[in-house]
Amino acid sequence: MIYFDNSATTEPNSDVLETFLEVSRRYYGNASSAHKLGLEAEHLLRKSYQHISQLLAVKPTEIIFTSGGTEGNNLAIKGIALAYQNRGKHLMTTTIEHPSVINTFQALEELGFEVTYLPVDQSGVVSIDAVKQALREDTILVSVMHVNNELGTIQPIEAIGQLLKNRKYTFFHVDHVQGFGKIGLDLKQSAIDLATISGHKIHGLKGTGLVYQREGVRLFPLLHGGGQQDNRHSGTENLAGIVSLSKAIRLILEQNSARSKHLQLLNRRMRDELTQIDEVIINTPENQAPHIINFSIPGLKPEIVLHALEERNIYVSTQSACSSKKASESSVLRAIHLPPNQRNSAIRISFSYHNTIDEIDVFIRELQRIIKELKQDMR
Amino acid sequence: MIYFDNSATTEPNSDVLETFLEVSRRYYGNASSAHKLGLEAEHLLRKSYQHISQLLAVKPTEIIFTSGGTEGNNLAIKGIALAYQNRGKHLMTTTIEHPSVINTFQALEELGFEVTYLPVDQSGVVSIDAVKQALREDTILVSVMHVNNELGTIQPIEAIGQLLKNRKYTFFHVDHVQGFGKIGLDLKQSAIDLATISGHKIHGLKGTGLVYQREGVRLFPLLHGGGQQDNRHSGTENLAGIVSLSKAIRLILEQNSARSKHLQLLNRRMRDELTQIDEVIINTPENQAPHIINFSIPGLKPEIVLHALEERNIYVSTQSACSSKKASESSVLRAIHLPPNQRNSAIRISFSYHNTIDEIDVFIRELQRIIKELKQDMR
Repeated sequence: MIYFDNSATTEPNSDVLETFLEVSRRYYGNASSAHKLGLEAEHLLRKSYQHISQLLAVKPTEIIFTSGGTEGNNLAIKGIALAYQNRGKHLMTTTIEHPSVINTFQALEELGFEVTYLPVDQSGVVSIDAVKQALREDTILVSVMHVNNELGTIQPIEAIGQLLKNRKYTFFHVDHVQGFGKIGLDLKQSAIDLATISGHKIHGLKGTGLVYQREGVRLFPLLHGGGQQDNRHSGTENLAGIVSLSKAIRLILEQNSARSKHLQLLNRRMRDELTQIDEVIINTPENQAPHIINFSIPGLKPEIVLHALEERNIYVSTQSACSSKKASESSVLRAIHLPPNQRNSAIRISFSYHNTIDEIDVFIRELQRIIKELKQDMR
Repeated sequence: MIYFDNSATTEPNSDVLETFLEVSRRYYGNASSAHKLGLEAEHLLRKSYQHISQLLAVKPTEIIFTSGGTEGNNLAIKGIALAYQNRGKHLMTTTIEHPSVINTFQALEELGFEVTYLPVDQSGVVSIDAVKQALREDTILVSVMHVNNELGTIQPIEAIGQLLKNRKYTFFHVDHVQGFGKIGLDLKQSAIDLATISGHKIHGLKGTGLVYQREGVRLFPLLHGGGQQDNRHSGTENLAGIVSLSKAIRLILEQNSARSKHLQLLNRRMRDELTQIDEVIINTPENQAPHIINFSIPGLKPEIVLHALEERNIYVSTQSACSSKKASESSVLRAIHLPPNQRNSAIRISFSYHNTIDEIDVFIRELQRIIKELKQDMR
């Protein structure tokens, strides 16, 4: 099997699963219980805060464990909006965010907030000037993703962070789900107030994730209750999930520091090979995130190409998994003003560190055959 | 080890864990992906909806998978409040709910809702009359737990359901976390609109749970995003967690139908034995949920008893796990007007089907020894 859909989800690392199993079996006590089983669980929980905070170079109290990227984005965005609405009701994001960001902002519009959706240029990047011009006295939140999930374009996070740094009541949230473990991002250096990370995109488990919340930033909780996680996220902690996340983060950061060139090699080979195919147009600009490549084969329906690849045991996607059930075309590709025949024929490849050059060669060979066959069928 | 803290959390069933592992390994595709790995995951997801809905005698579309009881209660309560606020802003609950209910209502008060907290009688039960009298034209939600987590008292859910049945815009939510799998509750017969169930209280995994949402009831989602679960709960489904929950539900309902007498036997034995100990006062009235018994030993600090039992490898709790970190006394015991010396010395025993009569006998023997030793120390 060749799995090139790692931006939709990744295969869980076997060590991560083993950790989940071990913790579930041995440390099933409720971390809030006063007895030994509870204290053992709480100890392990604290170790996970410590461990992850060291890996991310932040404080343990700056981490909130969540059930995944969608919850993280909802918590950060709704949390700021509801906590600081007395300061202002203007929010800002871009037109190419993940649905868990875009649709959360739309929900806040229903609740009386005003949202500016910043456009991006033809390469899919938002400009600092656009952010600057849209800022208002009552802007309490700017949310910009790090790496776009469909195109792989990298946003100027550090520059936006510097721009917002001295605005005390304009908070900066970064959806770091696709970037984390692939593209370095210094949370402190970039003056980020909130960042979202998901477990299952980095060979961790579904149902795991975290939000980085800079010290001093308040959030109106999504989940009220027993006051776990310092009142910021109530509910019995999914300890096995948390410890497994800590392992997944360590492993992906190890890969990132030791093998980031590997992703670049994969990217280079894929781009070079795709460029050789006349029918293919690459939609992702050069020098973006190495693990995502979006391309189109105008005239061919992407679902048909996807299923033809699938018959050869190769897995890719047509757009983001979270949008793929709806027949509608990608709003991200529309936002960068691709012509309709490119928008309607786009395919996304997304790598993990486990993919190989050989897999790319097989993919290219099969893709060429498929294009040839489909074009014959169409005559 | 004797584990009598099953209302805090339970040991995961090994079959449930095995299921989680198997699904994580074999069906890691994103259920929203268009290719075969996604379709296989989606197929399994649909089977879980089917399976659980049959077990609960509801429709597949009436189930929303969540990350646990706290999320379930937050989703149901905030979901109704925000979806129907134009119909009215009055909400109703009781003084003995779990923190994930009480604190959610308090959060809604901050957002402009008005909440009536109904008192309970000395046996910890809310009266139908109290509900009736507090109902107003603008009451959009009544939330009453099925089984109280600290006392084990059973609330008159079916009668409240019948009372509310014909009020089109007063919705009825039941926190079913402690009752599920122990005390039968027919969701349809009781005219319940929303019910919360948690996985880790029934030998399932932490991070799993569900909300029953009657057809026709709308919820403002807690999580906006890719539109998973029919737009009611976005985010990549934790498929392994969901399938494991489906197994945990089947297993607990099997126990409930085959061995409900076992819990009653345990309860009878424990009550009979505790009654023999002069220093002990049982706080839980007769004929309540069989798996929870609350008692006090006036004059002895419950933490000291708890730790003395723990040294003998016996685990109980002093109050609900979600409140146990705060030194404050139990609000539930205050609500039933226990005298201070009983409120301050309360211990909760909570059984699972795995507990045995032998364990009770060991517990009673050790408890007697501990009381004797502690009383000697106090001379």
